[in-house]
Amino acid sequence: MTDLKELQLLIEEAVNKLSFPNHPAELYEPISYILSIGGKRLRPALLLMACDLFGGDVKAAVPPALAIEVFHNFTLMHDDIMDNAPLRRGKTTVHERWNPNVAILSGDAMLVEAYKLLMQIDNSILRPALILFNQMGSAVCEGQQIDMQFEQRDNVSLEEYLDMIRLKTAVLLGCALEIGALAGGANKANAELLYTFGERLGIAFQLQDDILDVYGDPEKFGKQVGGDIIANKKTWLLIKALELAGERERAELDKWLLAKTFDVAEKVKAVTAIYDGLGIRQLAAEAMQAFATEAYQALEQIKVETERKQQLRYFADNLLNREK
Amino acid sequence: MTDLKELQLLIEEAVNKLSFPNHPAELYEPISYILSIGGKRLRPALLLMACDLFGGDVKAAVPPALAIEVFHNFTLMHDDIMDNAPLRRGKTTVHERWNPNVAILSGDAMLVEAYKLLMQIDNSILRPALILFNQMGSAVCEGQQIDMQFEQRDNVSLEEYLDMIRLKTAVLLGCALEIGALAGGANKANAELLYTFGERLGIAFQLQDDILDVYGDPEKFGKQVGGDIIANKKTWLLIKALELAGERERAELDKWLLAKTFDVAEKVKAVTAIYDGLGIRQLAAEAMQAFATEAYQALEQIKVETERKQQLRYFADNLLNREK
Repeated sequence: MTDLKELQLLIEEAVNKLSFPNHPAELYEPISYILSIGGKRLRPALLLMACDLFGGDVKAAVPPALAIEVFHNFTLMHDDIMDNAPLRRGKTTVHERWNPNVAILSGDAMLVEAYKLLMQIDNSILRPALILFNQMGSAVCEGQQIDMQFEQRDNVSLEEYLDMIRLKTAVLLGCALEIGALAGGANKANAELLYTFGERLGIAFQLQDDILDVYGDPEKFGKQVGGDIIANKKTWLLIKALELAGERERAELDKWLLAKTFDVAEKVKAVTAIYDGLGIRQLAAEAMQAFATEAYQALEQIKVETERKQQLRYFADNLLNREK
Repeated sequence: MTDLKELQLLIEEAVNKLSFPNHPAELYEPISYILSIGGKRLRPALLLMACDLFGGDVKAAVPPALAIEVFHNFTLMHDDIMDNAPLRRGKTTVHERWNPNVAILSGDAMLVEAYKLLMQIDNSILRPALILFNQMGSAVCEGQQIDMQFEQRDNVSLEEYLDMIRLKTAVLLGCALEIGALAGGANKANAELLYTFGERLGIAFQLQDDILDVYGDPEKFGKQVGGDIIANKKTWLLIKALELAGERERAELDKWLLAKTFDVAEKVKAVTAIYDGLGIRQLAAEAMQAFATEAYQALEQIKVETERKQQLRYFADNLLNREK
């Protein structure tokens, strides 16, 4: 079994070695740029760990792992245009540094590059890997579309929210793991269990994100604590709070949701106080834990020695107990 | 051999039968919309004709033919955002009818749909077909990027222009034909000759477009005659005119190229007169003919009975002698 640090090093080296044509520069430079500004490379690491779980050749699985990372960064490049985001991981976004047309077209070229990388997979699993990748691609687009629609709606249910984050975030983790399992020679049952592990872990991961955005330690959390509250983002916490709010809390919440001008710190403090009064943090943690349990149960059922699963279990533990 | 009309009917029926999920509507409706507003379906027809040329199963080649058509319409959806175009084939463009974010995301989903369709190809040619499709995808993005850069440049050479239209337009025709040839069971040499036929035909096709934009019959031409002149578009005609212009013509051309306000009809008339004086129409027709000749020569070399090639030859004749 390969050490996690080693796997991450393998990915980092492979990302750095990725090279694209010099011409036209405005098509390919933004791809190198967005890939160079980092991120945690969680998704390709999951693919390699999945391959490793079944004793597969980890080095041979690097190209499909890169396909997942390039795909993920393609979605970030296009999402940033749609969200009009000035920064990504503390750096200027592509559409700001160049312009929106460059970001549209480089993103398109990047999606094609992801397919090229995926294609380097062994012939025996080319078709199933492509089927998974295509399904995942559609799901991520659906999730982003539904997320954008939520901004215009005020009656989003928890069920709808959970399905949105499943599509937008969790399916990609499941897909990375299942392709890794295929590359490792897993049978269909084990590969599908690993998909479930990834999907459930992905939902738990996003719920943890929602919690950290409100309750994270400002010293450790990478972004502004309370960002979701300031932006009225419909997270699990807000939707649950609206569901549980009595007349008084509802009026208070509505006041803040409708306020056009407000003191940022005051809004964050007031909404957090409403959450506290309704016990939202605890409920969110329980919801997250329920998905985590489903993930661990799926992992449990996979038929390989328990010892080999230690790495993925440890990875999930860290992901769900992180502070940023 | 299947009649061209029959092939087109086959495509039209298949396009009409394409169905996408109902939810989320704003992701999939724009895809159905852009596919429904028509176009000549030349590219998928070429794929089917190529398959037919080698006696392949034309019906089995419909999904990859649709992949080419869906890909082509994906590029139109994104190009229209970049060009800020209000109309496409006389109908409101997707980014105008919905909004740019919808057009970005639906386009992305459409590219994934194209891959799903392509994947329905037989296992024995899955990898080579995907390699061709990926190369084509990169080339089309490169061509669009170079075309956008040309707008900011005033020293574009004919060579650069021809390479841009090769990437942006012609490679897709070559790719459609080569995938069709693979689906028809052609050997590598014949498949590559058919690619060359398509690529050269594509360049000739675009040069014909440039000529028609200036010299087309206003009664028959679908768009406004002189549109390229009005927009200072760097076509073969303008680049050649700038190359051949003496001092007097150069001053006159520069005057019109730099004019911020002008009478549209007057500009078209004046620039056309300069072209006429320099014999540009004839030169463009000769350049087009040279590429057409290369295309026909490649077709000639393909080792199937001459009779079977009649359909593609006839198709090319019509394409290059069209009036709109």
